[in-house]
Amino acid sequence: MSSSSPPAFLQPALANLKHSPPPDRPHVTLTFAQSLDAKIAGQHGKQLILSGKESMVMTHWLRTMHDGIIVGIGTALNDDPQLNTRHLPPRLDSQPHSLPRPIILDPRLRLSPECKLLKNFQAKTGRRPWVLSATPTDDDRPDWQQRYDALSQAGASIVQLELSSNILPVPVVLEKLRRLGINSLMVEGGARIIDSFLNACSFIDTLLVTVAPTLVGSHGVAYGTNIPTGISHLRHFDTQAVGNDAVIILKSEKS
Amino acid sequence: MSSSSPPAFLQPALANLKHSPPPDRPHVTLTFAQSLDAKIAGQHGKQLILSGKESMVMTHWLRTMHDGIIVGIGTALNDDPQLNTRHLPPRLDSQPHSLPRPIILDPRLRLSPECKLLKNFQAKTGRRPWVLSATPTDDDRPDWQQRYDALSQAGASIVQLELSSNILPVPVVLEKLRRLGINSLMVEGGARIIDSFLNACSFIDTLLVTVAPTLVGSHGVAYGTNIPTGISHLRHFDTQAVGNDAVIILKSEKS
Repeated sequence: MSSSSPPAFLQPALANLKHSPPPDRPHVTLTFAQSLDAKIAGQHGKQLILSGKESMVMTHWLRTMHDGIIVGIGTALNDDPQLNTRHLPPRLDSQPHSLPRPIILDPRLRLSPECKLLKNFQAKTGRRPWVLSATPTDDDRPDWQQRYDALSQAGASIVQLELSSNILPVPVVLEKLRRLGINSLMVEGGARIIDSFLNACSFIDTLLVTVAPTLVGSHGVAYGTNIPTGISHLRHFDTQAVGNDAVIILKSEKS
Repeated sequence: MSSSSPPAFLQPALANLKHSPPPDRPHVTLTFAQSLDAKIAGQHGKQLILSGKESMVMTHWLRTMHDGIIVGIGTALNDDPQLNTRHLPPRLDSQPHSLPRPIILDPRLRLSPECKLLKNFQAKTGRRPWVLSATPTDDDRPDWQQRYDALSQAGASIVQLELSSNILPVPVVLEKLRRLGINSLMVEGGARIIDSFLNACSFIDTLLVTVAPTLVGSHGVAYGTNIPTGISHLRHFDTQAVGNDAVIILKSEKS
């Protein structure tokens, strides 16, 4: 896995990325790491390093293959992720790896102007993050402009959707991102955004799950607490042992 | 996987079976199939065929390597399992495969005298099932003897533990089985017996989980709803892609 190209099994699994996406949304790859007992975080959402080095590297290769990478505001606040490709070996041609656009789903503008994504942008080691927000409500008004200005000054590009609800519907988000030039989107978590996509599962082209050989226990954070039964259009595509982990790939039969 | 010997990775994973078990219990291999979202059955415990053919065959090889195989009464009533090795190809020497002793954990003697395990014994295609029961309580008395006689006449060997509780503690069960000559025990489920063993996890030598590439959804039956945090003595041993499934093996560091 220290080779200078992505693991061979990723190419067929993501062959759809070579074609044009549907007109109203990007290609969507939902990906996350879980324990054997299907937990994605510890008690109270505590970040757990579940995947081993090899599958972490695989995830970073996956990032280079997508235009954008989206996380929920819960994950952004809790894990302060960088969403970059720092675990990859240098490219043979010495060019930098293609970095996906970091996108934070943050209806209420709760992102910290001090977060690593903005620091990395300021240090020119990361791309400018996009913050997808809703329009402010009366509750938000007092310091909305202040938060808006602080994030903008720190480098965030704030994309305001014409919705005031706390939940931004998946199809609306996807259509907006497609119009902004994102043709392929990687969805990385946490639980709330994973569940939003699983509940809008017709928008998922690829589901790639890394299963780590560990049991977190019932205090951990589960996903899919409300998965509909009609998720049958996702069919098994590949299973690989990657380091100590298992990587399981399902594809939409439409892709 | 149609070869006439077990998959090569099972031998090192179960090397402990070649040594004597501890004095007070058999070697214990806890094994089950789950969906990606860690469900082992459908709504209201409905049986799901989760594992593919290849991992089903692997499970049957696993059975040949153990003296006994235990299931809970819930699984026995719900799935009416055979716990045999019918998916295996014939042995090269034409001898029958070694069959594990079927053992049902059935404190209240609820097993049906019509179950496949007893039918198979009567037809000489299965070994005599052992039924591990508790001593009857006042609630049980009216038709306890009737149920006892019906099961005995159908061929069950009833082993009564000196306990009247509805829950037979894992250490007591294991000690009894060891005294009855079971040196290696495979635990196959369902949820209640899996949880009993995970909660008494110091008795597990090997945990072998087959992960099928499917999502069952929140209506399915989960296990580990009360896993203690101190399960850290189980360490990753091996991960294999078996057909479409992933097989993940954890071992006790003591074994």
